[in-house]
Amino acid sequence: MRIFIAQRNPIIGDLDGNLTKILESVRHAKETQSDIVLFSELMLCGYPPEDLALHRSFVNSMMAHLEHIIRASDGLTIIVGIIRPNVARRGKRLLNSAAIIHNSRLLGFHDKCLLPNYDVFDERRYFEPGREVRLWNINGKRVGITICEDIWKHASYIDHTHYKRDPVLALKKHRPDLLLNISASPYQFQKLNMRVEVCAKAASTLNCPVLMCCQVGANGQIIFDGYSLYVNEKGELCRLGKGFAEDEMVIDLDTPPHPVPYAQDPHANLIHALKLGVKDYFSKLSFNKALLGLSGGIDSALVAYIAAKALGPKMVTGVSMPSSYTNPQSRREAKQLADILGIKFIEIPITTPFDTLVHLLSPHFCGKESDITEENLQARIRGIILMALSNKFGHIVLSTGNKSEVALGYATLYGDMCGGLGVIGDVPKTKVYELCKYINRAEKRETILHSIIDKPPSAELRPNQTDADSLPAYHIVDTILKGYVEEHQSAEEIAKTHNIPQKQVEELIQKIHEAEYKRRQGPPILRISKKSFGTGRRYPIVQRWG
Amino acid sequence: MRIFIAQRNPIIGDLDGNLTKILESVRHAKETQSDIVLFSELMLCGYPPEDLALHRSFVNSMMAHLEHIIRASDGLTIIVGIIRPNVARRGKRLLNSAAIIHNSRLLGFHDKCLLPNYDVFDERRYFEPGREVRLWNINGKRVGITICEDIWKHASYIDHTHYKRDPVLALKKHRPDLLLNISASPYQFQKLNMRVEVCAKAASTLNCPVLMCCQVGANGQIIFDGYSLYVNEKGELCRLGKGFAEDEMVIDLDTPPHPVPYAQDPHANLIHALKLGVKDYFSKLSFNKALLGLSGGIDSALVAYIAAKALGPKMVTGVSMPSSYTNPQSRREAKQLADILGIKFIEIPITTPFDTLVHLLSPHFCGKESDITEENLQARIRGIILMALSNKFGHIVLSTGNKSEVALGYATLYGDMCGGLGVIGDVPKTKVYELCKYINRAEKRETILHSIIDKPPSAELRPNQTDADSLPAYHIVDTILKGYVEEHQSAEEIAKTHNIPQKQVEELIQKIHEAEYKRRQGPPILRISKKSFGTGRRYPIVQRWG
Repeated sequence: MRIFIAQRNPIIGDLDGNLTKILESVRHAKETQSDIVLFSELMLCGYPPEDLALHRSFVNSMMAHLEHIIRASDGLTIIVGIIRPNVARRGKRLLNSAAIIHNSRLLGFHDKCLLPNYDVFDERRYFEPGREVRLWNINGKRVGITICEDIWKHASYIDHTHYKRDPVLALKKHRPDLLLNISASPYQFQKLNMRVEVCAKAASTLNCPVLMCCQVGANGQIIFDGYSLYVNEKGELCRLGKGFAEDEMVIDLDTPPHPVPYAQDPHANLIHALKLGVKDYFSKLSFNKALLGLSGGIDSALVAYIAAKALGPKMVTGVSMPSSYTNPQSRREAKQLADILGIKFIEIPITTPFDTLVHLLSPHFCGKESDITEENLQARIRGIILMALSNKFGHIVLSTGNKSEVALGYATLYGDMCGGLGVIGDVPKTKVYELCKYINRAEKRETILHSIIDKPPSAELRPNQTDADSLPAYHIVDTILKGYVEEHQSAEEIAKTHNIPQKQVEELIQKIHEAEYKRRQGPPILRISKKSFGTGRRYPIVQRWG
Repeated sequence: MRIFIAQRNPIIGDLDGNLTKILESVRHAKETQSDIVLFSELMLCGYPPEDLALHRSFVNSMMAHLEHIIRASDGLTIIVGIIRPNVARRGKRLLNSAAIIHNSRLLGFHDKCLLPNYDVFDERRYFEPGREVRLWNINGKRVGITICEDIWKHASYIDHTHYKRDPVLALKKHRPDLLLNISASPYQFQKLNMRVEVCAKAASTLNCPVLMCCQVGANGQIIFDGYSLYVNEKGELCRLGKGFAEDEMVIDLDTPPHPVPYAQDPHANLIHALKLGVKDYFSKLSFNKALLGLSGGIDSALVAYIAAKALGPKMVTGVSMPSSYTNPQSRREAKQLADILGIKFIEIPITTPFDTLVHLLSPHFCGKESDITEENLQARIRGIILMALSNKFGHIVLSTGNKSEVALGYATLYGDMCGGLGVIGDVPKTKVYELCKYINRAEKRETILHSIIDKPPSAELRPNQTDADSLPAYHIVDTILKGYVEEHQSAEEIAKTHNIPQKQVEELIQKIHEAEYKRRQGPPILRISKKSFGTGRRYPIVQRWG
């Protein structure tokens, strides 16, 4: 039996475009004499469609598109993820399903049994859980079909939901010859290892091969890394699809498989993820040009590098907007970086508009001293300039704030927080350094200038300012961030585990909560960690805890 | 039997403050010789706590606070909404519960059975549903206890979730003497009628009185209107708590009740709701001063009125920021309105900073013609000015966009979309007019100048601009908005039902989707309709449907 894994990059809501991709892969599957072609979860509408699914016309249109897939299935079996109406009188109106189509006939559906409803997942908002897992007879083989989460419970990898059922265990008594899983499993730093283990666990329990077809591509804030996989009945990885790119693999189950290694450089993968995040955000919105402020600091350097790699350097413009507080070295480094990356560079000093606005406002400031107002004013003038250029020429502005700044609100709302996409908003400052050093190692040259990496971080909004004036050292910030935001640990636990004064931990947690109102109006952030600011993290702005 | 309904306004996460309110009401209940004191759903932590509930330390602290309530319960029964850990090995880790406390002893818990997971509700993200409803023997009476949604299924009022159980029906066979319900039911235009009917339906089915204790107060975007209620066994409303204010009611079940009327002016209620939304947003964040741009248009006039009523006129500053495109009449009207409302008024013309920035940018604009860029520039300079004043003096900036503009993206991101709170972002333009006319009727004077109400709406960002240049008439916009956003109707259905050309409907729907990226960075919006932009509406930015 030959199985064709179609690891494709759907666009949310683009039923026609996704159908075209599906039919194309079906043709390739036929050309390779495959018996089964496997698509990812909700391939027809893209994952996650969010509230589009609440429109009846959307779901009806999906069912109409399914007819085209059925007509194209002569001579083989197609398994494809769709949303379908729940015809039962009770329960949510929709089902997250795999349509099983054989030789121009719809055999039936497997409905996802375990519906994640935590972090970025809201599946109980839309879907009723499927009731059963059963075997499907495909070309004489006893095939189990599961959708994403269905296979995860068995490996005990799920934090916040303890499902009552385990579909893998339910299948065990039916003794399948093969388990197929169609997934839309988001990228997360070092998550591939988990996915391999999840498949290996199911393979060992069922004593059969497991094939997982994964969605690839970024949809908004969520990045899907692909890496579809084939694990033999011993739980050994025997084939791994491409990461961060579409891929089509033919797996011949009758040829004895050989285990393959899959050790990967997590930093290389993270760079790939961010590049894909930028690339798909632009292409799926039909944009191709990016604009960003280049301060001469490490954050904008990293974002410029990622944008240049994702979109091509000619599509990226860096804007240096020096003020009287800007270190001349920063100004030179911004230009040098742009030259190294080959991106466009323009310089627009903000001194004149800053002076104009300060003069205009001074009668209303009643003689009050210069304070955070004037710092924010500079950041907002920069924001206005970037937005004006973007309006005039059709760029998307990239925001360059890192996760540590986003956490603490160490950024100006409507200023440096301007932008259509927060590229490194889920990358903590310490990891920003790691990535820049990795880039220089990988490229074997000083792509990110050592002087940019080595200087003390500063917002340069007042004379001789450094981040260290206002914030604890970033390794402490990031430790607290991980404990509190990702692990939901208490201040006490964090203080004890990491030997940080509890008062310092508490002050930082309070800053995280106080900055909620800024984040609510910040740009969408590419999610690369277990818990990103942005989608998947929902805290009240108005609250008094923590 | 005397029941004390404590309709209070909790602050999310303020366990100490909410406990103080609880103990205060318990004292009042004792003073009035009440037998039972009833608090609203999740009174101890405020509703909705969102992801705060995922912190174990938060839930542990809540259980510790519960001990104080238990100790204060000598001589009476307390029923209070809390979150408690789910000790069962399976299922979500938390339960949304009513603690039933009698005479210094915790009798037990009723766990919410029906967990809403649609619109603004995400309860399946946190909670495991309760398994049973049973009767509680309180002072010899057979009392059924339910939490919010538990009682709604029975009246068939739920759109997106068809629960498998009906707790009211489950109670029927136990023949209760009394049904108590503790709620956190959000305000929505004309929703009170529904709530009365829901209680009436339960009362008729169970043939017993129904008492509902409701949360009051705004928590972020969601406004809770109070209006706790008492319905007799015939389903007649016999007592209604205050709307939009804390209230304590003693209901003596042994005194024969008399039906009371509850017809209400929906516009009066809507104004109350918006006022409460503003008031609580400020007070719960410990702010007291508001700032807004006064353009001389109807939207900012309405917001200024609401802010003045909510915070007191002295706490509100209107800023007129005329440009060369500003009609001198608009400028005068802004000042006149400020005088009528008694709010502070300042004028800061934007001509100089606009010219400075245009001059600064012109070398980079490569001779391109003036376009939307220059319009946005004006709006963003106004945004900067408001934010600078707010930074210097500690105001919260109020955003004045209405729902129709928010829907279509007829607003400038980081410009007029600046602000900590979108006061009328869920009020469609046609309703803005209705409300202003209502205000003048209710106040029996020209509070909102007729000339402001009567002039054609304009953004005044280029010469002789009016909204009608870019948009269909607002009654058409609002009809499509209601059909598509609130009712999820298809373009075809809307076109047919309202006799609007389908192409026009489709174009507008496309605009709604295209503006998603702006809304994502817009201010939080006070929710007053069935479906608000903001919390409760989740659409992808990157998508190609509609």
